[in-house]
Amino acid sequence: MTLPKGTKNCITDVPDVQVGHVTLYEHLNETDTICTGVTAILPHSGNIFRKKVVAGNAVINGFGKTTGLMQIDELGVLEAPIMLTNTLSVGAVMQGTLAYMLEETEEIGDTAGTINLVVGECNDGYLNSIRLQAVKPEHAGNAIQNATSESSLEGAVGVGTGMQCLGYKGGIGTSSRIISAENKKYTLGTLVVSNFGRREQALFPVNSTENPDTPDGSIMMILATDAPFSDRQLKRLAKRCAVGLGRTGSTIDNGSGDIAIAFSTAAKIEHHANQIIEPMTMIRDDHPIMNQFFQGVAEVIEEAIYRSLQQAETTVGRGGRTLERAPI
Amino acid sequence: MTLPKGTKNCITDVPDVQVGHVTLYEHLNETDTICTGVTAILPHSGNIFRKKVVAGNAVINGFGKTTGLMQIDELGVLEAPIMLTNTLSVGAVMQGTLAYMLEETEEIGDTAGTINLVVGECNDGYLNSIRLQAVKPEHAGNAIQNATSESSLEGAVGVGTGMQCLGYKGGIGTSSRIISAENKKYTLGTLVVSNFGRREQALFPVNSTENPDTPDGSIMMILATDAPFSDRQLKRLAKRCAVGLGRTGSTIDNGSGDIAIAFSTAAKIEHHANQIIEPMTMIRDDHPIMNQFFQGVAEVIEEAIYRSLQQAETTVGRGGRTLERAPI
Amino acid sequence: MTLPKGTKNCITDVPDVQVGHVTLYEHLNETDTICTGVTAILPHSGNIFRKKVVAGNAVINGFGKTTGLMQIDELGVLEAPIMLTNTLSVGAVMQGTLAYMLEETEEIGDTAGTINLVVGECNDGYLNSIRLQAVKPEHAGNAIQNATSESSLEGAVGVGTGMQCLGYKGGIGTSSRIISAENKKYTLGTLVVSNFGRREQALFPVNSTENPDTPDGSIMMILATDAPFSDRQLKRLAKRCAVGLGRTGSTIDNGSGDIAIAFSTAAKIEHHANQIIEPMTMIRDDHPIMNQFFQGVAEVIEEAIYRSLQQAETTVGRGGRTLERAPI
Amino acid sequence: MTLPKGTKNCITDVPDVQVGHVTLYEHLNETDTICTGVTAILPHSGNIFRKKVVAGNAVINGFGKTTGLMQIDELGVLEAPIMLTNTLSVGAVMQGTLAYMLEETEEIGDTAGTINLVVGECNDGYLNSIRLQAVKPEHAGNAIQNATSESSLEGAVGVGTGMQCLGYKGGIGTSSRIISAENKKYTLGTLVVSNFGRREQALFPVNSTENPDTPDGSIMMILATDAPFSDRQLKRLAKRCAVGLGRTGSTIDNGSGDIAIAFSTAAKIEHHANQIIEPMTMIRDDHPIMNQFFQGVAEVIEEAIYRSLQQAETTVGRGGRTLERAPI
Repeated sequence: MTLPKGTKNCITDVPDVQVGHVTLYEHLNETDTICTGVTAILPHSGNIFRKKVVAGNAVINGFGKTTGLMQIDELGVLEAPIMLTNTLSVGAVMQGTLAYMLEETEEIGDTAGTINLVVGECNDGYLNSIRLQAVKPEHAGNAIQNATSESSLEGAVGVGTGMQCLGYKGGIGTSSRIISAENKKYTLGTLVVSNFGRREQALFPVNSTENPDTPDGSIMMILATDAPFSDRQLKRLAKRCAVGLGRTGSTIDNGSGDIAIAFSTAAKIEHHANQIIEPMTMIRDDHPIMNQFFQGVAEVIEEAIYRSLQQAETTVGRGGRTLERAPI
Repeated sequence: MTLPKGTKNCITDVPDVQVGHVTLYEHLNETDTICTGVTAILPHSGNIFRKKVVAGNAVINGFGKTTGLMQIDELGVLEAPIMLTNTLSVGAVMQGTLAYMLEETEEIGDTAGTINLVVGECNDGYLNSIRLQAVKPEHAGNAIQNATSESSLEGAVGVGTGMQCLGYKGGIGTSSRIISAENKKYTLGTLVVSNFGRREQALFPVNSTENPDTPDGSIMMILATDAPFSDRQLKRLAKRCAVGLGRTGSTIDNGSGDIAIAFSTAAKIEHHANQIIEPMTMIRDDHPIMNQFFQGVAEVIEEAIYRSLQQAETTVGRGGRTLERAPI
Repeated sequence: MTLPKGTKNCITDVPDVQVGHVTLYEHLNETDTICTGVTAILPHSGNIFRKKVVAGNAVINGFGKTTGLMQIDELGVLEAPIMLTNTLSVGAVMQGTLAYMLEETEEIGDTAGTINLVVGECNDGYLNSIRLQAVKPEHAGNAIQNATSESSLEGAVGVGTGMQCLGYKGGIGTSSRIISAENKKYTLGTLVVSNFGRREQALFPVNSTENPDTPDGSIMMILATDAPFSDRQLKRLAKRCAVGLGRTGSTIDNGSGDIAIAFSTAAKIEHHANQIIEPMTMIRDDHPIMNQFFQGVAEVIEEAIYRSLQQAETTVGRGGRTLERAPI
Repeated sequence: MTLPKGTKNCITDVPDVQVGHVTLYEHLNETDTICTGVTAILPHSGNIFRKKVVAGNAVINGFGKTTGLMQIDELGVLEAPIMLTNTLSVGAVMQGTLAYMLEETEEIGDTAGTINLVVGECNDGYLNSIRLQAVKPEHAGNAIQNATSESSLEGAVGVGTGMQCLGYKGGIGTSSRIISAENKKYTLGTLVVSNFGRREQALFPVNSTENPDTPDGSIMMILATDAPFSDRQLKRLAKRCAVGLGRTGSTIDNGSGDIAIAFSTAAKIEHHANQIIEPMTMIRDDHPIMNQFFQGVAEVIEEAIYRSLQQAETTVGRGGRTLERAPI
């Protein structure tokens, strides 16, 4: 890994990107534990519906329930915060995010049509009593309101509270790189929710290969940059997440929803505009800086996954199930 | 159109397929009217999570919010009822469908992982006070419980209550065809939610080209058959929906989420099984019956759209906005 | 059909677009007839490798052998003439086009890497003795050299020489529309190679439903415009070709390779450039002019298919097989 | 890496899979060297057009010119040998493969329609005088005729003759794994053409980071197995090639056409058949053996890439350019 890191080594090194968490952790009784949460990633501090950002995505393995990717593919923009929660709370978080955006944006559902909500998920049902659906719609709004550009929390926080990774405690990881050439300097950052793999897949030394009985899991990988890319190019970046993921030991298991979403904050595209033409700029695909970005994607994903392990403390969940902190 | 119709000319001509509706229609005050609903399509009368059906989909225009298509692409199966509602109620219907399925299936979120919910939508915000979010989670369960294999309601019912099509009142339409060759006989059916287009696009004589100020809209097109197809083949069928749609006047406008989902009831795939191998059968792509199915798709979609117009009565919605019954 | 037509109602109404044909028609003996050809479409009169154009494509049915679409999807540009020939001559036309481009562009294969050749095809084997492979590499170069911006030949010419459509003689058809809004005025044109369908599918009155024993066939649909679109948007345009195609009677048969390629001449993207940033402009997806373009695609495809029939004379091919001029 | 290897650790461990090479290596003069070739992979020893095999593919980076993938996506089968050559010889190899298949199969282009040729490529223009197009159509037929199920040649042979990888001499690599569960035992094999990357990307110790001035390159990755998979599942396998690739240092550079094609020999699907129904079997996606296959893909790709380096001797190409054997 050779590219320089951003100041905080965090997705919020990308100017104006904000992250907020709501963490829910409570032992209810011998059987049930609430061990889950919501994380919100805001591309900028304004109204995202009114000022959309260019976006792309890659479905590395589609055993997942992320909403909103179809419209990103069709229109190439993101118009709502990226919300992350557990698999059975996607509906609740959609509800809460919708309520927040309706409140903030009176034209949605009236004069301006609808809004495309992007809610990603991983299954934290090993530790979390997921059937209890502890995440409520208001938690989504709270996560958005908690968002700051200072945030750099990692590990068992927000949506990461109940996640498992490579047989240990997983969760939130983040990382960033500075990409520069000539007189240009850009930031590339990621936030991941690690929730995949078994101990025998780990490429670091494990303290026991006896894996807890965790399911295949999933990983959400969000890329942010201030470099100007088209939607096609952001999809190219998103696809490279498979490299960083594979380098941590994953072989993209059957049950793992491995989803990457990439956005660029370089352009803010108005929801309403009278003009016919939208001017855009994009990095030339053939410029050597493009390969730096591809390298950067591999680096930030790999590092963010490892950070998610390093920053996550041993956690006890439902029925006393415990996931240890990874020995790295 | 030359293929013979099924007994009821309805998607429920496909054996064991069931349809149920919840209709919400109430004038609240001078400004607001609730004019919306939920429709459920069940591939069979059993537990769909435990006995999955093979499925495919086609995103003809992705300006839409349908959930669950990514996993259908990855795994080739449908494991929940197909739910249809208005655009801002996708979250609520996910919630209600989840509650229903959790109640019915204790292993979800416990020993069996998660469930892939498929909720499609069209924007009924021209007639319906969509910001009020009148659809509640329980309406999803009600629509499922209302489902019968006798259902053949059309027009302004269920999710079709508030829809607009070609400048007139749209809604639910259904149609079916019998496809046969040698000693085989299959049924192909569709249910559509028509909500697209402007009067000047109609290919039937209109009584005025002055179009109400409706947005681009959308269309959901669900195909069901008892013929054995693979997921790849069902995607081929789903793609042909564009033909029937285009023949009614649509040119697949920018803002129209035009989504097709196709499933086959020929195989029921167990969620849990110990065996390594799953035996399957599929129609040979090169057999002439395949072209009959493609013709059948064009026919049922075209007819179902016209039926949705013919069966929908003039409807008054929010602020007194009115959509007339189409003059056909 | 309501949009105004271009001056020649031809793809070459798009400024600087050029079309050239090579027609091969010779009765060799009682069994064999050469009845085939090559058609070249040049996005502009310069070196296309050095000045690329933005492009997108849609695989409406992938039972076809068109080359080069993968790289168009990845990079969003076209860097060679679009070549059209019969199915078993794709290799020969690749060879000839490569030779032409190598001659014209000394840096290819030396300092500038490789070139992405786009060769589309339809199967003219009903009339043409396709196994004899009468198309030679030099015919590709000849078709390119024959290209002019005046060309408006249709029917049994170039690649259209041996094609069949809806049970009659098919071939080349072309059409154009003027799309305008405010102070902007653009041209949208198409050239199609019609080679699909059976008489019973025709939506015009046929003189007999006894169809000749033609195979499922194919259609190539090339869209050109001088409006600024991104690659994503050109894919959107290309997908709408299914509407125009369906309106002529096609239900996109199993064996029919139905392929659409769209390019915009608004930007010329240099193969080599030192700068990091490429400025672009694009039509706003939400501007009403977008729906005009979608309507325009449906119109030009439908009209070009009908023109291909109207302009194609009755043709006798191998073993005396004859395809009549369609009665329209 | 823990899965057991096949007898030869070669793609030809999959029963009846055959590989053949034609190697062209000649110094013409001080400027030009022919340093290229053709490699053929046959899924079985019979006529592949008449007995097709199920196939899928993944375009990991689409800066490439592989033909035939579109039809594999549409129909899910492979009906010709997989041919591999240099980028500017795709047309010639199509021609030669066509000639071979026409000779072997009199119905193609007569009663049986056309044939979908699959020709993959990498750019060997750093060592090879690629503009000279030394590969002739007959070399394709020769490669097919050379094919045997004993073949296990690696390194600078066949299409690998002129390839570069990670700044060293690349070429052909192959590897296999045995996947078993309960009473089932399957073989998974790969053959790769390595032609990507720069020394600074290598994850093994390099003897100098001064990279020769090689372009971004490409990699072709062919997977073969005797396990019964559907086309959808084979695409899943093909996508996992990105993991093995990334583990060797690649970050999937802009100019690298990284293409994976997977086929299963478990079923032989007749080109012609009268019956409507085709019986199939498939591995259950949820069976733990599936994750073994995914692990297997990562293992065979990583190992085959390293073997391609280890088996390739230092090679001198055009203008005296030299690529050293990698120090591993």
